[in-house]
Amino acid sequence: MGERVLPRAERRRRTEGRILDAARALFAEVGYERATIRAIARSAEVDPALVMQYFGSKQELFQQSVRVTAVDTATGTETDADTGTGAEDLVERLLGTLGAKMGEMPQGSLAMMRSMLTHPEAATSARQVLGAQIDRLTESIHGEDARLRAALIMTVMVGVTVGNQLLELDELRGVPPEEIARLLRPSLRALTGPDVS
Amino acid sequence: MGERVLPRAERRRRTEGRILDAARALFAEVGYERATIRAIARSAEVDPALVMQYFGSKQELFQQSVRVTAVDTATGTETDADTGTGAEDLVERLLGTLGAKMGEMPQGSLAMMRSMLTHPEAATSARQVLGAQIDRLTESIHGEDARLRAALIMTVMVGVTVGNQLLELDELRGVPPEEIARLLRPSLRALTGPDVS
Repeated sequence: MGERVLPRAERRRRTEGRILDAARALFAEVGYERATIRAIARSAEVDPALVMQYFGSKQELFQQSVRVTAVDTATGTETDADTGTGAEDLVERLLGTLGAKMGEMPQGSLAMMRSMLTHPEAATSARQVLGAQIDRLTESIHGEDARLRAALIMTVMVGVTVGNQLLELDELRGVPPEEIARLLRPSLRALTGPDVS
Repeated sequence: MGERVLPRAERRRRTEGRILDAARALFAEVGYERATIRAIARSAEVDPALVMQYFGSKQELFQQSVRVTAVDTATGTETDADTGTGAEDLVERLLGTLGAKMGEMPQGSLAMMRSMLTHPEAATSARQVLGAQIDRLTESIHGEDARLRAALIMTVMVGVTVGNQLLELDELRGVPPEEIARLLRPSLRALTGPDVS
C-alpha cells in the first residue's frame, strides 16, 4: 500500500480529532480554567492558532469535548440513536442510559461535570448541549408547555446523576439501574404529560 | 437596664452564632477549601481553638453553616415546619419551596452549592444533611423501597435547583414556581408510590 497523501478534509478531521482528545484529557485533568488553548495545542502537537482556527474559542472547544462525554452521560440522550419518537420511546431511551449514570464514571467525565456546574463558560456549553436535547424531547411531547416539560425531564436526569456521581448518596449506591428505572418510569411519564401520542 | 452578665449557655450560643455567620460568609466568598478555621476565627474575633472546641472540625462547621442555607434551598425541606406527615403533605411541602429555588439565590448559597458539588468534604456534609431529609421522607412513604423512593424525590429537587441556579437553563428562567409545581406534582406523587396512606 505505502504512504499516500490524505485528502485535505480527511487530514483536517484527523487533526480536529487529535485536538479534541487532547482537550478532553486536559479539561478532565486540570479543569476548565487551567486548561489553556496553548497547553491543549502543545499536547495535540499543533499550533495554538490552528486550535483557534478550527474551534473559534476555548468555550466552543470545551463544548465539542463534552458533547460526547459528560453531558450525554449526565442527561442520557444519545445524539444519533433514534429508535422511536413517541413520548414513551423517549422515556425508555432515557431510562436505558441509567446504567452509564449509575455505574462508575470515568474521572474525566466527573471533572467535566464539576466544571460545568462551577464555571460560567463551561455552564454555557452544558446549557447549549442540554438545550439541543430539550429541543429533541420537545418534539415528542404535546401541549403548549411541552418545552418546559422537556426541560424538567432533563433536570430529573441531571439530578439523579448529580446525586449519584457527585453527592454519592448512599441510597443510590449499588442499586441496579433497572430498579431505578422501574421507580422513575411513572415519574418521567407523568412529566411527558397526559396527552401522549 | 444596664449591662448584666449573661448566663454561660447564652454566651456560648451567641459566640457559636457569630462563628457560624463568619463561616457562612467566608465559605461563600472563597469556597470550602480556602476558608480556613484560622480565617473564620479571625473574622468572628475568637480564638481558632474555640472554633475547634465548639464545632470539632471544618467539615462539621461547614455542615452547620449549610444546614440553614444551600442544602435546604436546594432540596426544599424545612427542618422544623412539620405540617403533615402523609406522602401528599410531603409532596406539597416540597413543591411549596420551589419559590426559593426558582428565585434569585444569594451568591453565598450558590457558592456553597458549588462547594458541595465539587469538594469531597463539602459533599460529605451535603450527603449528611440530605440523608436526614431522606430519613424524614422515608417515614411518609410505604413499601420496602421507601428509602430509595425518598432519595429519588430528593434528587429531583436537586436537579431542578441545579438546572435553574447553576446551569441556568433558559427553559426554567422566569417560570412561575406554581407552574413548575403543577408539572412536578404528578411526577413526585408517582415517586411516593401507589400505596399512599
